Amino acid sequence: MCQLLGMNCNTPTDIVFSFTGFATRGGRTDEHKDGWGIAFFEGNGVRHFVDHQPAVSSPVADLIKRLPIQSKNVIAHIRKATQGEVMLENCHPFVRECWGRYWVFAHNGDLKEFAPELDGSFLPVGTTDSERAFCFILQQMRHRFGRTLPALPELTSFLRGIASEIAAFGTFNMMLSNGEALFTHCSTKLHYIIRQYPFTTANLSDEQVTVDFAEVTTPDDRVAVIVTEPLTSDEIWTQFAPGEMKVFVDGKVQTELLA
Amino acid sequence: MCQLLGMNCNTPTDIVFSFTGFATRGGRTDEHKDGWGIAFFEGNGVRHFVDHQPAVSSPVADLIKRLPIQSKNVIAHIRKATQGEVMLENCHPFVRECWGRYWVFAHNGDLKEFAPELDGSFLPVGTTDSERAFCFILQQMRHRFGRTLPALPELTSFLRGIASEIAAFGTFNMMLSNGEALFTHCSTKLHYIIRQYPFTTANLSDEQVTVDFAEVTTPDDRVAVIVTEPLTSDEIWTQFAPGEMKVFVDGKVQTELLA
Repeated sequence: MCQLLGMNCNTPTDIVFSFTGFATRGGRTDEHKDGWGIAFFEGNGVRHFVDHQPAVSSPVADLIKRLPIQSKNVIAHIRKATQGEVMLENCHPFVRECWGRYWVFAHNGDLKEFAPELDGSFLPVGTTDSERAFCFILQQMRHRFGRTLPALPELTSFLRGIASEIAAFGTFNMMLSNGEALFTHCSTKLHYIIRQYPFTTANLSDEQVTVDFAEVTTPDDRVAVIVTEPLTSDEIWTQFAPGEMKVFVDGKVQTELLA
Repeated sequence: MCQLLGMNCNTPTDIVFSFTGFATRGGRTDEHKDGWGIAFFEGNGVRHFVDHQPAVSSPVADLIKRLPIQSKNVIAHIRKATQGEVMLENCHPFVRECWGRYWVFAHNGDLKEFAPELDGSFLPVGTTDSERAFCFILQQMRHRFGRTLPALPELTSFLRGIASEIAAFGTFNMMLSNGEALFTHCSTKLHYIIRQYPFTTANLSDEQVTVDFAEVTTPDDRVAVIVTEPLTSDEIWTQFAPGEMKVFVDGKVQTELLA
Protein backbone atom coordinates (compact mmCIF):
# COMPACT_ATOMS: atom_id res chain seq x y z
CA MET A 1 0.00 0.00 0.00
CA CYS A 2 0.98 3.62 -0.30
CA GLN A 3 0.10 6.96 1.17
CA LEU A 4 -1.33 10.04 -0.51
CA LEU A 5 -1.01 13.73 0.25
CA GLY A 6 -2.86 16.52 -1.53
CA MET A 7 -3.16 20.26 -1.05
CA ASN A 8 -5.65 22.69 -2.58
CA CYS A 9 -5.61 26.42 -1.72
CA ASN A 10 -7.12 29.74 -2.67
CA THR A 11 -3.67 31.34 -2.82
CA PRO A 12 -0.33 29.78 -3.78
CA THR A 13 1.05 28.15 -0.63
CA ASP A 14 4.10 26.03 0.09
CA ILE A 15 3.71 22.44 1.30
CA VAL A 16 7.04 22.26 3.16
CA PHE A 17 5.47 21.61 6.59
CA SER A 18 3.10 18.84 5.46
CA PHE A 19 5.60 17.25 3.09
CA THR A 20 8.23 17.10 5.84
CA GLY A 21 5.99 14.94 8.01
CA PHE A 22 4.75 12.92 5.04
CA ALA A 23 8.23 12.16 3.67
CA THR A 24 9.29 10.81 7.07
CA ARG A 25 6.81 7.98 6.51
CA GLY A 26 8.78 7.10 3.39
CA GLY A 27 11.20 4.84 5.27
CA ARG A 28 11.47 6.11 8.86
CA THR A 29 8.15 6.33 10.76
CA ASP A 30 6.48 4.06 8.22
CA GLU A 31 7.38 1.49 5.58
CA HIS A 32 6.62 3.34 2.32
CA LYS A 33 10.16 3.27 1.00
CA ASP A 34 9.70 2.09 -2.62
CA GLY A 35 9.86 5.52 -4.19
CA TRP A 36 7.94 8.74 -3.90
CA GLY A 37 6.85 11.68 -6.00
CA ILE A 38 5.24 15.09 -5.90
CA ALA A 39 3.72 17.40 -8.50
CA PHE A 40 3.07 21.12 -8.07
CA PHE A 41 0.87 23.14 -10.40
CA GLU A 42 2.31 26.58 -11.06
CA GLY A 43 0.06 28.54 -13.40
CA ASN A 44 -0.70 26.00 -16.10
CA GLY A 45 2.73 24.41 -15.70
CA VAL A 46 3.67 21.50 -13.48
CA ARG A 47 6.82 20.81 -11.50
CA HIS A 48 7.06 17.04 -11.27
CA PHE A 49 9.56 15.22 -9.07
CA VAL A 50 9.74 11.43 -8.84
CA ASP A 51 12.36 9.19 -7.31
CA HIS A 52 12.61 5.47 -6.69
CA GLN A 53 14.73 6.09 -3.60
CA PRO A 54 13.01 6.26 -0.19
CA ALA A 55 11.62 9.76 0.44
CA VAL A 56 13.41 9.87 3.78
CA SER A 57 16.88 9.67 2.17
CA SER A 58 16.31 11.07 -1.35
CA PRO A 59 18.35 14.22 -2.17
CA VAL A 60 15.44 15.44 -4.30
CA ALA A 61 13.00 15.05 -1.39
CA ASP A 62 15.49 16.92 0.73
CA LEU A 63 15.36 19.81 -1.77
CA ILE A 64 11.54 19.82 -1.67
CA LYS A 65 11.67 20.08 2.14
CA ARG A 66 13.86 23.18 1.83
CA LEU A 67 12.32 24.87 -1.22
CA PRO A 68 9.05 26.73 -0.56
CA ILE A 69 7.45 26.12 -3.98
CA GLN A 70 4.18 28.09 -4.06
CA SER A 71 1.27 26.20 -5.53
CA LYS A 72 -2.52 26.06 -5.38
CA ASN A 73 -2.66 22.35 -6.17
CA VAL A 74 -0.18 19.69 -5.08
CA ILE A 75 -0.31 15.89 -5.12
CA ALA A 76 2.33 13.72 -3.43
CA HIS A 77 2.75 9.98 -2.95
CA ILE A 78 4.99 7.58 -1.08
CA ARG A 79 5.04 4.07 -2.40
CA LYS A 80 5.09 0.61 -0.94
CA ALA A 81 5.13 -1.55 -4.04
CA THR A 82 2.28 -4.04 -4.50
CA GLN A 83 1.91 -4.22 -8.30
CA GLY A 84 4.82 -3.11 -10.49
CA GLU A 85 8.52 -3.17 -9.60
CA VAL A 86 10.46 -0.41 -7.85
CA MET A 87 11.34 1.65 -10.93
CA LEU A 88 11.12 5.32 -11.77
CA GLU A 89 8.30 4.78 -14.29
CA ASN A 90 6.17 3.23 -11.52
CA CYS A 91 6.45 6.22 -9.17
CA HIS A 92 3.34 8.33 -8.66
CA PRO A 93 2.09 10.93 -9.32
CA PHE A 94 1.64 10.42 -13.05
CA VAL A 95 1.20 13.34 -15.44
CA ARG A 96 -0.58 13.49 -18.80
CA GLU A 97 -1.95 16.29 -20.98
CA CYS A 98 -5.61 16.46 -22.02
CA TRP A 99 -7.39 19.48 -23.57
CA GLY A 100 -4.19 21.51 -23.36
CA ARG A 101 -3.93 21.07 -19.59
CA TYR A 102 -1.81 18.85 -17.44
CA TRP A 103 -3.58 16.27 -15.27
CA VAL A 104 -1.85 14.80 -12.25
CA PHE A 105 -2.91 11.54 -10.61
CA ALA A 106 -1.86 9.37 -7.66
CA HIS A 107 -3.46 6.26 -6.23
CA ASN A 108 -3.31 4.20 -3.08
CA GLY A 109 -4.67 0.69 -3.12
CA ASP A 110 -4.66 -2.47 -5.13
CA LEU A 111 -6.87 -3.20 -8.13
CA LYS A 112 -7.41 -6.87 -8.93
CA GLU A 113 -7.73 -7.99 -12.54
CA PHE A 114 -8.32 -4.45 -13.70
CA ALA A 115 -7.65 -4.64 -17.44
CA PRO A 116 -9.77 -2.03 -19.21
CA GLU A 117 -9.55 -1.72 -22.97
CA LEU A 118 -7.18 1.11 -23.83
CA ASP A 119 -7.52 2.53 -27.34
CA GLY A 120 -4.02 4.01 -27.48
CA SER A 121 -4.91 7.63 -26.72
CA PHE A 122 -3.36 7.33 -23.25
CA LEU A 123 -1.15 4.34 -22.43
CA PRO A 124 0.78 3.43 -19.30
CA VAL A 125 4.58 3.64 -19.47
CA GLY A 126 5.14 1.60 -16.32
CA THR A 127 3.52 -1.56 -15.02
CA THR A 128 1.21 -0.39 -12.21
CA ASP A 129 -2.53 -0.86 -11.99
CA SER A 130 -2.60 2.81 -10.93
CA GLU A 131 -1.22 4.26 -14.16
CA ARG A 132 -3.57 1.95 -16.08
CA ALA A 133 -6.49 3.41 -14.12
CA PHE A 134 -5.31 6.96 -14.82
CA CYS A 135 -5.05 6.30 -18.57
CA PHE A 136 -8.49 4.72 -18.56
CA ILE A 137 -9.99 7.74 -16.78
CA LEU A 138 -8.46 10.19 -19.28
CA GLN A 139 -9.47 8.09 -22.28
CA GLN A 140 -13.08 7.84 -21.09
CA MET A 141 -13.14 11.51 -20.13
CA ARG A 142 -12.05 12.63 -23.59
CA HIS A 143 -14.39 10.12 -25.17
CA ARG A 144 -17.28 11.47 -23.10
CA PHE A 145 -16.65 15.20 -23.48
CA GLY A 146 -15.01 15.45 -26.90
CA ARG A 147 -12.69 18.35 -27.54
CA THR A 148 -13.39 20.69 -24.61
CA LEU A 149 -13.00 20.67 -20.87
CA PRO A 150 -16.52 20.43 -19.42
CA ALA A 151 -17.81 22.61 -16.57
CA LEU A 152 -16.95 21.43 -13.08
CA PRO A 153 -20.36 19.87 -12.23
CA GLU A 154 -20.31 17.67 -15.37
CA LEU A 155 -16.68 16.73 -14.84
CA THR A 156 -17.29 15.88 -11.19
CA SER A 157 -20.28 13.74 -11.97
CA PHE A 158 -18.30 11.87 -14.62
CA LEU A 159 -15.35 11.32 -12.27
CA ARG A 160 -17.56 10.13 -9.45
CA GLY A 161 -19.05 7.54 -11.77
CA ILE A 162 -15.77 6.26 -13.13
CA ALA A 163 -14.10 6.24 -9.70
CA SER A 164 -16.78 3.99 -8.28
CA GLU A 165 -16.59 1.80 -11.40
CA ILE A 166 -12.82 1.36 -10.88
CA ALA A 167 -13.21 0.95 -7.10
CA ALA A 168 -15.23 -2.20 -7.79
CA PHE A 169 -11.92 -3.87 -8.73
CA GLY A 170 -10.35 -3.33 -5.31
CA THR A 171 -9.14 -0.34 -3.32
CA PHE A 172 -9.18 3.03 -5.04
CA ASN A 173 -8.11 5.91 -2.84
CA MET A 174 -7.03 8.51 -5.39
CA MET A 175 -6.25 12.14 -6.07
CA LEU A 176 -6.56 13.85 -9.44
CA SER A 177 -6.02 17.50 -10.33
CA ASN A 178 -6.05 19.66 -13.43
CA GLY A 179 -4.63 22.64 -11.57
CA GLU A 180 -8.02 24.13 -10.72
CA ALA A 181 -9.81 21.45 -8.77
CA LEU A 182 -8.49 18.59 -6.66
CA PHE A 183 -10.69 15.50 -7.00
CA THR A 184 -10.35 12.90 -4.26
CA HIS A 185 -11.94 9.49 -3.90
CA CYS A 186 -11.80 7.30 -0.81
CA SER A 187 -12.24 3.53 -0.78
CA THR A 188 -10.75 2.83 2.62
CA LYS A 189 -8.82 5.71 4.17
CA LEU A 190 -8.46 9.44 3.58
CA HIS A 191 -8.60 12.44 5.93
CA TYR A 192 -8.76 16.18 5.37
CA ILE A 193 -8.52 19.45 7.17
CA ILE A 194 -9.28 23.02 6.10
CA ARG A 195 -6.97 25.60 7.60
CA GLN A 196 -8.35 29.15 7.61
CA TYR A 197 -8.59 32.27 9.78
CA PRO A 198 -8.15 32.28 12.75
CA PHE A 199 -5.01 30.19 12.22
CA THR A 200 -3.44 28.20 15.06
CA THR A 201 -0.21 26.30 15.64
CA ALA A 202 0.21 22.64 14.72
CA ASN A 203 2.68 19.87 15.54
CA LEU A 204 3.68 17.17 13.09
CA SER A 205 3.04 13.61 14.25
CA ASP A 206 6.10 12.21 12.45
CA GLU A 207 8.75 14.87 13.17
CA GLN A 208 9.54 17.33 15.95
CA VAL A 209 8.27 20.29 13.94
CA THR A 210 5.78 22.96 14.98
CA VAL A 211 4.41 25.76 12.86
CA ASP A 212 2.37 28.81 13.78
CA PHE A 213 0.20 29.21 10.69
CA ALA A 214 -0.83 32.72 11.83
CA GLU A 215 2.75 33.83 11.17
CA VAL A 216 2.90 32.55 7.59
CA THR A 217 -0.57 33.37 6.29
CA THR A 218 -2.92 36.28 5.69
CA PRO A 219 -6.50 36.24 7.03
CA ASP A 220 -7.84 35.52 3.55
CA ASP A 221 -5.83 32.33 3.02
CA ARG A 222 -7.61 29.00 2.95
CA VAL A 223 -5.77 25.72 2.60
CA ALA A 224 -7.18 22.20 2.35
CA VAL A 225 -4.83 19.34 3.13
CA ILE A 226 -5.94 15.80 2.30
CA VAL A 227 -3.89 12.82 3.41
CA THR A 228 -4.14 9.08 4.06
CA GLU A 229 -3.35 9.42 7.79
CA PRO A 230 -3.53 12.76 9.70
CA LEU A 231 -0.21 14.61 9.69
CA THR A 232 -0.59 16.59 12.90
CA SER A 233 -1.28 15.50 16.45
CA ASP A 234 -3.16 18.59 17.66
CA GLU A 235 -5.69 19.40 14.93
CA ILE A 236 -9.03 17.84 14.11
CA TRP A 237 -9.01 15.94 10.84
CA THR A 238 -12.17 14.72 9.15
CA GLN A 239 -12.24 11.16 7.88
CA PHE A 240 -13.82 10.38 4.49
CA ALA A 241 -16.55 7.75 4.38
CA PRO A 242 -15.80 4.66 2.27
CA GLY A 243 -16.90 5.31 -1.33
CA GLU A 244 -16.92 9.06 -0.78
CA MET A 245 -15.70 11.54 -3.36
CA LYS A 246 -14.82 15.12 -2.48
CA VAL A 247 -13.85 17.98 -4.76
CA PHE A 248 -11.72 20.85 -3.48
CA VAL A 249 -11.52 24.27 -5.16
CA ASP A 250 -9.87 27.32 -3.59
CA GLY A 251 -9.30 25.43 -0.35
CA LYS A 252 -13.00 24.57 0.05
CA VAL A 253 -14.99 21.37 -0.26
CA GLN A 254 -17.44 21.83 -3.13
CA THR A 255 -20.31 20.03 -1.42
CA GLU A 256 -22.99 21.29 -3.81
CA LEU A 257 -21.27 19.42 -6.68
CA LEU A 258 -21.90 16.11 -5.00
CA ALA A 259 -25.28 16.81 -3.43
CA MET B 1 16.90 32.37 -28.97
CA CYS B 2 17.83 29.54 -26.69
CA GLN B 3 20.47 26.90 -26.32
CA LEU B 4 20.16 23.12 -26.42
CA LEU B 5 22.16 20.35 -24.79
CA GLY B 6 21.70 16.64 -25.41
CA MET B 7 23.52 13.51 -24.32
CA ASN B 8 23.23 9.98 -25.66
CA CYS B 9 25.36 7.12 -24.27
CA ASN B 10 25.81 3.37 -24.42
CA THR B 11 25.89 3.18 -20.62
CA PRO B 12 24.11 5.36 -18.04
CA THR B 13 26.32 8.41 -17.50
CA ASP B 14 25.92 11.60 -15.51
CA ILE B 15 25.79 14.97 -17.25
CA VAL B 16 27.12 17.01 -14.30
CA PHE B 17 30.22 18.27 -16.16
CA SER B 18 28.43 19.39 -19.32
CA PHE B 19 25.40 20.77 -17.49
CA THR B 20 27.64 22.85 -15.21
CA GLY B 21 29.09 24.70 -18.19
CA PHE B 22 25.75 24.88 -19.96
CA ALA B 23 23.86 26.29 -16.95
CA THR B 24 26.42 29.08 -16.62
CA ARG B 25 25.13 30.41 -19.95
CA GLY B 26 21.74 30.72 -18.29
CA GLY B 27 22.42 34.22 -16.98
CA ARG B 28 26.18 34.56 -16.43
CA THR B 29 28.36 33.87 -19.50
CA ASP B 30 25.36 34.28 -21.79
CA GLU B 31 21.90 35.84 -21.77
CA HIS B 32 19.61 32.79 -21.66
CA LYS B 33 17.99 33.62 -18.35
CA ASP B 34 14.26 33.12 -19.05
CA GLY B 35 14.04 29.65 -17.57
CA TRP B 36 15.63 26.31 -18.16
CA GLY B 37 14.85 22.63 -18.00
CA ILE B 38 16.32 19.16 -18.22
CA ALA B 39 14.89 15.67 -18.66
CA PHE B 40 16.69 12.41 -17.91
CA PHE B 41 15.47 9.03 -19.10
CA GLU B 42 15.95 6.35 -16.46
CA GLY B 43 14.69 3.00 -17.71
CA ASN B 44 11.35 3.91 -19.25
CA GLY B 45 10.81 6.64 -16.68
CA VAL B 46 11.73 10.31 -16.98
CA ARG B 47 13.00 12.74 -14.40
CA HIS B 48 11.86 16.16 -15.58
CA PHE B 49 12.98 19.42 -14.02
CA VAL B 50 11.83 22.83 -15.27
CA ASP B 51 12.18 26.25 -13.74
CA HIS B 52 11.41 29.76 -14.91
CA GLN B 53 14.28 31.14 -12.85
CA PRO B 54 17.68 31.63 -14.53
CA ALA B 55 19.67 28.37 -14.56
CA VAL B 56 22.62 30.16 -12.99
CA SER B 57 20.70 30.97 -9.79
CA SER B 58 17.99 28.27 -9.65
CA PRO B 59 18.17 26.00 -6.55
CA VAL B 60 16.91 23.13 -8.69
CA ALA B 61 19.72 23.67 -11.24
CA ASP B 62 22.10 23.73 -8.33
CA LEU B 63 20.84 20.29 -7.27
CA ILE B 64 21.32 18.94 -10.81
CA LYS B 65 24.93 20.18 -10.77
CA ARG B 66 25.53 18.18 -7.57
CA LEU B 67 23.47 15.06 -8.25
CA PRO B 68 25.06 12.53 -10.62
CA ILE B 69 21.83 11.21 -12.18
CA GLN B 70 22.80 8.33 -14.47
CA SER B 71 21.04 8.36 -17.82
CA LYS B 72 21.51 7.18 -21.39
CA ASN B 73 19.45 10.02 -22.86
CA VAL B 74 19.28 13.58 -21.59
CA ILE B 75 17.88 16.77 -23.12
CA ALA B 76 18.41 20.20 -21.53
CA HIS B 77 17.47 23.73 -22.57
CA ILE B 78 18.13 27.29 -21.45
CA ARG B 79 15.64 29.83 -22.66
CA LYS B 80 15.74 33.37 -23.93
CA ALA B 81 12.09 34.08 -24.57
CA THR B 82 11.05 35.01 -28.11
CA GLN B 83 7.50 33.63 -28.35
CA GLY B 84 5.56 32.94 -25.15
CA GLU B 85 6.00 34.62 -21.77
CA VAL B 86 8.42 33.59 -19.02
CA MET B 87 6.21 31.01 -17.33
CA LEU B 88 6.76 27.48 -16.13
CA GLU B 89 4.52 26.00 -18.83
CA ASN B 90 6.74 27.57 -21.50
CA CYS B 91 9.97 25.98 -20.23
CA HIS B 92 11.52 23.25 -22.36
CA PRO B 93 11.96 20.33 -22.53
CA PHE B 94 8.35 19.23 -22.98
CA VAL B 95 7.23 15.68 -22.20
CA ARG B 96 4.34 13.67 -23.65
CA GLU B 97 3.47 9.97 -23.80
CA CYS B 98 2.93 8.14 -27.09
CA TRP B 99 2.74 4.34 -27.56
CA GLY B 100 3.35 3.84 -23.84
CA ARG B 101 6.67 5.67 -23.92
CA TYR B 102 7.66 9.13 -22.88
CA TRP B 103 8.92 11.52 -25.56
CA VAL B 104 11.03 14.52 -24.63
CA PHE B 105 11.48 17.54 -26.89
CA ALA B 106 13.34 20.85 -26.86
CA HIS B 107 13.70 23.50 -29.56
CA ASN B 108 15.88 26.47 -30.31
CA GLY B 109 14.72 28.98 -32.90
CA ASP B 110 11.72 30.95 -33.95
CA LEU B 111 8.89 29.67 -36.14
CA LYS B 112 6.87 32.33 -37.96
CA GLU B 113 3.16 31.84 -38.53
CA PHE B 114 3.40 28.17 -37.70
CA ALA B 115 -0.22 27.18 -36.99
CA PRO B 116 -0.69 23.53 -37.90
CA GLU B 117 -4.08 21.95 -37.43
CA LEU B 118 -4.11 20.06 -34.15
CA ASP B 119 -6.83 17.43 -33.79
CA GLY B 120 -6.77 17.36 -29.98
CA SER B 121 -4.69 14.22 -29.50
CA PHE B 122 -1.71 16.31 -28.31
CA LEU B 123 -2.25 19.96 -27.41
CA PRO B 124 0.14 22.60 -26.08
CA VAL B 125 -0.33 23.71 -22.48
CA GLY B 126 1.81 26.84 -22.86
CA THR B 127 2.04 29.44 -25.60
CA THR B 128 5.30 28.66 -27.41
CA ASP B 129 5.71 27.80 -31.08
CA SER B 130 8.01 25.02 -29.82
CA GLU B 131 5.40 23.08 -27.87
CA ARG B 132 3.02 23.49 -30.83
CA ALA B 133 5.65 21.92 -33.09
CA PHE B 134 6.16 19.05 -30.63
CA CYS B 135 2.43 18.33 -30.46
CA PHE B 136 2.21 18.43 -34.27
CA ILE B 137 5.09 15.96 -34.61
CA LEU B 138 3.49 13.49 -32.17
CA GLN B 139 0.07 13.84 -33.76
CA GLN B 140 1.44 13.18 -37.25
CA MET B 141 3.65 10.39 -35.98
CA ARG B 142 0.74 8.53 -34.41
CA HIS B 143 -1.39 9.27 -37.46
CA ARG B 144 1.30 7.84 -39.72
CA PHE B 145 2.22 4.72 -37.74
CA GLY B 146 -1.02 3.82 -35.98
CA ARG B 147 -0.81 1.96 -32.74
CA THR B 148 2.81 0.75 -32.63
CA LEU B 149 6.24 2.29 -32.44
CA PRO B 150 7.86 1.79 -35.86
CA ALA B 151 11.40 0.50 -36.38
CA LEU B 152 14.14 3.11 -36.16
CA PRO B 153 14.70 3.54 -39.93
CA GLU B 154 11.01 4.29 -40.58
CA LEU B 155 10.80 6.58 -37.58
CA THR B 156 13.95 8.45 -38.61
CA SER B 157 12.75 8.91 -42.15
CA PHE B 158 9.42 10.25 -40.90
CA LEU B 159 11.10 12.65 -38.45
CA ARG B 160 13.52 13.92 -41.07
CA GLY B 161 10.59 14.74 -43.32
CA ILE B 162 8.53 16.52 -40.68
CA ALA B 163 11.55 18.40 -39.29
CA SER B 164 12.32 19.90 -42.67
CA GLU B 165 8.62 20.69 -43.17
CA ILE B 166 8.56 22.61 -39.86
CA ALA B 167 11.95 24.21 -40.54
CA ALA B 168 10.38 25.94 -43.54
CA PHE B 169 8.60 28.21 -41.04
CA GLY B 170 11.81 29.57 -39.56
CA THR B 171 14.59 28.17 -37.40
CA PHE B 172 14.22 24.64 -36.12
CA ASN B 173 17.18 23.37 -34.14
CA MET B 174 15.65 20.60 -32.08
CA MET B 175 16.24 17.51 -29.98
CA LEU B 176 13.76 14.68 -29.48
CA SER B 177 14.19 11.43 -27.59
CA ASN B 178 12.09 8.41 -26.68
CA GLY B 179 14.75 7.05 -24.34
CA GLU B 180 16.42 4.87 -26.97
CA ALA B 181 17.44 7.26 -29.73
CA LEU B 182 18.24 10.94 -29.64
CA PHE B 183 17.02 12.69 -32.81
CA THR B 184 18.60 16.05 -33.57
CA HIS B 185 17.87 18.53 -36.34
CA CYS B 186 19.93 21.61 -37.15
CA SER B 187 18.66 24.68 -38.96
CA THR B 188 21.41 27.07 -37.99
CA LYS B 189 23.67 25.88 -35.19
CA LEU B 190 24.44 22.59 -33.46
CA HIS B 191 27.72 20.84 -32.58
CA TYR B 192 28.55 17.37 -31.31
CA ILE B 193 31.39 15.32 -29.94
CA ILE B 194 31.76 11.58 -29.29
CA ARG B 195 33.85 10.77 -26.26
CA GLN B 196 35.27 7.24 -26.23
CA TYR B 197 38.42 5.28 -25.38
CA PRO B 198 41.15 6.53 -25.12
CA PHE B 199 39.59 9.24 -22.96
CA THR B 200 41.35 12.56 -22.35
CA THR B 201 40.88 15.56 -20.09
CA ALA B 202 38.68 18.52 -21.00
CA ASN B 203 38.19 22.08 -19.78
CA LEU B 204 34.85 23.84 -19.74
CA SER B 205 34.71 27.10 -21.72
CA ASP B 206 32.23 28.72 -19.30
CA GLU B 207 33.60 27.66 -15.90
CA GLN B 208 36.99 26.86 -14.38
CA VAL B 209 36.31 23.13 -14.38
CA THR B 210 38.49 20.34 -15.74
CA VAL B 211 37.65 16.66 -15.89
CA ASP B 212 39.80 13.64 -16.68
CA PHE B 213 37.30 11.39 -18.42
CA ALA B 214 39.71 8.44 -18.12
CA GLU B 215 39.14 8.52 -14.36
CA VAL B 216 35.35 8.36 -14.54
CA THR B 217 34.78 5.93 -17.42
CA THR B 218 35.50 2.36 -18.47
CA PRO B 219 37.09 1.60 -21.86
CA ASP B 220 33.73 0.46 -23.23
CA ASP B 221 31.90 3.72 -22.52
CA ARG B 222 30.81 5.90 -25.39
CA VAL B 223 29.10 9.25 -24.88
CA ALA B 224 27.77 11.66 -27.48
CA VAL B 225 27.23 15.25 -26.39
CA ILE B 226 25.30 17.57 -28.69
CA VAL B 227 25.05 21.27 -27.96
CA THR B 228 24.34 24.62 -29.59
CA GLU B 229 27.85 26.00 -28.90
CA PRO B 230 30.82 23.78 -27.92
CA LEU B 231 31.15 23.38 -24.15
CA THR B 232 34.88 22.73 -23.91
CA SER B 233 37.85 24.74 -25.12
CA ASP B 234 40.27 21.87 -25.78
CA GLU B 235 38.29 19.26 -27.70
CA ILE B 236 37.30 19.09 -31.33
CA TRP B 237 33.57 19.52 -31.86
CA THR B 238 31.90 18.80 -35.19
CA GLN B 239 29.42 21.35 -36.50
CA PHE B 240 26.18 20.20 -38.11
CA ALA B 241 25.38 21.44 -41.60
CA PRO B 242 22.24 23.56 -41.98
CA GLY B 243 19.26 21.28 -42.60
CA GLU B 244 21.12 18.28 -41.25
CA MET B 245 19.49 15.63 -39.09
CA LYS B 246 21.50 13.19 -36.97
CA VAL B 247 20.31 10.25 -34.91
CA PHE B 248 22.32 9.03 -31.94
CA VAL B 249 21.97 5.56 -30.41
CA ASP B 250 24.36 4.12 -27.82
CA GLY B 251 26.63 7.15 -28.15
CA LYS B 252 27.06 6.70 -31.90
CA VAL B 253 25.81 8.61 -34.92
CA GLN B 254 23.57 6.27 -36.91
CA THR B 255 24.79 7.41 -40.31
CA GLU B 256 23.29 4.48 -42.22
CA LEU B 257 19.80 5.64 -41.21
CA LEU B 258 20.23 8.88 -43.09
CA ALA B 259 22.27 7.67 -46.01
